[in-house]
Amino acid sequence: MMNLTASEPVELSELRCIGCGLRTNNPGHKFRCSACADLLEIVYPGWDTTDGQRAAPFTAAALKALWRTRRKSFVPMDQSGVWRFRELLPHFASGEKIITLREGNTPLYELPSCARAVGVEYLVAKHQGMNPTGSFKDTGMTVAASMARQEGFRWVGCASTGNTSASVAAYAARAQMRSLVLIPQGKVSWGKLSQSLDYGAITVELKTDFDGCSRILDEVVDRMPVYLLNSVNPYRIEGQKTAAIELLEQLDWQPPDHIIVPGGNLGNSSALGKALLELGKLHFITRLPKVSIVQAEGANPLVRTMRETGGRKLVSVRAETAASAIRIGSPASWKKAVRVLEQTGGTVAEVSEVEIAWAKAQIGADGVGCEPASAVTLAGLKRLVQGGFVKPGESVVLILTGHLLKDPDFTLKFHRGELFRDTEQRKEAEILVPHERAPITLEASADAVISVLKQVEEGSEA
Amino acid sequence: MMNLTASEPVELSELRCIGCGLRTNNPGHKFRCSACADLLEIVYPGWDTTDGQRAAPFTAAALKALWRTRRKSFVPMDQSGVWRFRELLPHFASGEKIITLREGNTPLYELPSCARAVGVEYLVAKHQGMNPTGSFKDTGMTVAASMARQEGFRWVGCASTGNTSASVAAYAARAQMRSLVLIPQGKVSWGKLSQSLDYGAITVELKTDFDGCSRILDEVVDRMPVYLLNSVNPYRIEGQKTAAIELLEQLDWQPPDHIIVPGGNLGNSSALGKALLELGKLHFITRLPKVSIVQAEGANPLVRTMRETGGRKLVSVRAETAASAIRIGSPASWKKAVRVLEQTGGTVAEVSEVEIAWAKAQIGADGVGCEPASAVTLAGLKRLVQGGFVKPGESVVLILTGHLLKDPDFTLKFHRGELFRDTEQRKEAEILVPHERAPITLEASADAVISVLKQVEEGSEA
Repeated sequence: MMNLTASEPVELSELRCIGCGLRTNNPGHKFRCSACADLLEIVYPGWDTTDGQRAAPFTAAALKALWRTRRKSFVPMDQSGVWRFRELLPHFASGEKIITLREGNTPLYELPSCARAVGVEYLVAKHQGMNPTGSFKDTGMTVAASMARQEGFRWVGCASTGNTSASVAAYAARAQMRSLVLIPQGKVSWGKLSQSLDYGAITVELKTDFDGCSRILDEVVDRMPVYLLNSVNPYRIEGQKTAAIELLEQLDWQPPDHIIVPGGNLGNSSALGKALLELGKLHFITRLPKVSIVQAEGANPLVRTMRETGGRKLVSVRAETAASAIRIGSPASWKKAVRVLEQTGGTVAEVSEVEIAWAKAQIGADGVGCEPASAVTLAGLKRLVQGGFVKPGESVVLILTGHLLKDPDFTLKFHRGELFRDTEQRKEAEILVPHERAPITLEASADAVISVLKQVEEGSEA
Repeated sequence: MMNLTASEPVELSELRCIGCGLRTNNPGHKFRCSACADLLEIVYPGWDTTDGQRAAPFTAAALKALWRTRRKSFVPMDQSGVWRFRELLPHFASGEKIITLREGNTPLYELPSCARAVGVEYLVAKHQGMNPTGSFKDTGMTVAASMARQEGFRWVGCASTGNTSASVAAYAARAQMRSLVLIPQGKVSWGKLSQSLDYGAITVELKTDFDGCSRILDEVVDRMPVYLLNSVNPYRIEGQKTAAIELLEQLDWQPPDHIIVPGGNLGNSSALGKALLELGKLHFITRLPKVSIVQAEGANPLVRTMRETGGRKLVSVRAETAASAIRIGSPASWKKAVRVLEQTGGTVAEVSEVEIAWAKAQIGADGVGCEPASAVTLAGLKRLVQGGFVKPGESVVLILTGHLLKDPDFTLKFHRGELFRDTEQRKEAEILVPHERAPITLEASADAVISVLKQVEEGSEA
């Protein structure tokens, strides 16, 4: 049994190339394999019980109990919903070096009206949009930003559709590091843009798309001492794993049948899948949920990759969708995501813009807000139920990745009937989306308000 | 000792008029005293140990231990940072009736650069903007909305500057009740407006200000079966108390010297003060923090009420400030707030629009985002330190009430230099606010990005 105090070293981790398997402890500044340039991932040799060399350094039962006990603690590392699970993360020399905004600890919400709408009995949402900066990115950023600080960097940087930049800027400010944020001009929601400005990032709008921003950042980190905080950074993936660990803990370690995730750059699905596989290996759970990934029709590189090449070769696309957080045509972590689909038995789905808007309004009707990219999960679930991949009696968890307030513009346009202008979309919208309800402007009179109330009452009785 | 299981009845509460002291169990639909029309508050006769009749039904030590133990529980009522403290709240028949979004559980953040900027040694923020809908309103709404459901209402309603409406709409949707939201036309941030639409509220923009919306709602609830969810509703105040209880728990029951709160409709300061007084009476703490209330110069009715009448008569104003959440000229809970100032020994302060913007950017520089109304606390603290009311060695807690994403427009305008246009303000802004940093638009080239980086580096070395 390991010693379970915070200051005791936990198991050491190594970096391994997902392509050629080369192991290293020097990730370089681009987190690519020095031999084949593929992505790196973090592995924990000490956990390998199958190679006969040694036993895992802890038991699942002991860690489950320890993690639960930490919920009572007021130590910052224990209050973080990421670092509470630090035995399954890379080791940090000391809690002092950790940059935390008390990320994680996100709620599970039952979605009764959504469940009825798609035809399943048990449906809950794990709301990662309840993280400090309003998206799941924080869970990975606390680990990777802490690593940047430990390595002595003064600058960190990212390319972003908006959520990553908000998180990078916040954690950098918290650590008194400078941050550089590259975003596609005019394609990031105002809310997200305001976040990186507020936290003091150098915010650069480039005349290109997200994929172009990513390429340019790669060149910048080649030439300048800027620590790369995109999701190719394997420490981000490790932090994002904890959402799955926390989810399983909330479910008393009874895995659901399905977990549905939005697919953008595919770091999140990679992280959740990695967590599940590790939890299985370490005997925390005895069966794996199927992890399925949903993309917008206009930004469906993974869907096409699976359909056209069986997952062997990335099919890049020019991405277009109102769900800006997943407007990515050439996802960095596609290979990791393919492995997750294969190893958990999940599948992919794609959904239309109107289906996304319908799903977002449906989730809202359960009193839970999210950004459009998060709503693809419910839209995708509906398709997966219709196609028979998800059975009505199976249990389903949706991963909501961003807060409603991340993209108020989408919501306002939707309710004002401005989101869908072409005739085909309008027709689809009228069938699928009966939720549109614009604000009503009235003279300041109680009579006027009461007459609106009465109309609504009559309408709902009719 | 009381029995501490969830299903056991806790002490009964009563309603008491804050003006004439009349006790009642029928609050009416406007939550006003039937004799003198003043506000009602909830009292707990069973806690009175001073009248010699009976002892308090619990000890502070036992409750402290119980509340901490509940942090390990996965029961929804225990996971709520409001209902975890239910022994100090009005009794509900059953946990089944409770509407919760897992509100509360908000973080305490140290603010090192803000502390240096205002000249105090110990400064932390209790960030109520980390509640599910992004503002402190959720902590009160879970209690009042649960009461609405328990009483069988199908409709709930509020007048709002935006945060209340978001919270009302979310909790109503969660309980499958309908909600009516009255907001001043053109005066609510887009983010907040998008929330009430998303959660399905009937959202009515009235051609008047917040105070006008309040008056009209009063008439509506007179004539229609709509449950009033404004902060005159004393159940909201009870829920909002828990922020202070949670704060003290986070500080291991060692009260800070000062708590600084933004002042709008003054329900929040009333609630925090009530909690502190009750915690003192019940021997959870042995001394009271001073609660001070900060308003914008353009919306300063409490400041004027204290200055011009010594707190005896409300001085209403026509409110104008970019901090829209506290743009209120005739605050409903002014009498309760005056009592809190008197009983805790706190004071009032008012701050300029430029000072608010400065404070918000300063808080952002610590990696913590908030809406403008929250930032008045830091601006006010600076004034209180300068004036000698707060000593450099004293400990201070700022209550941040709303999330940064509640009002991205303010942040964008600020960084684009569009917030302050008149000459005097610009002059003040240039001295106070060196933080303005607009986004930079560049061609898609690494060279261009690197040249910006180098300029920033040179600038910060100079």
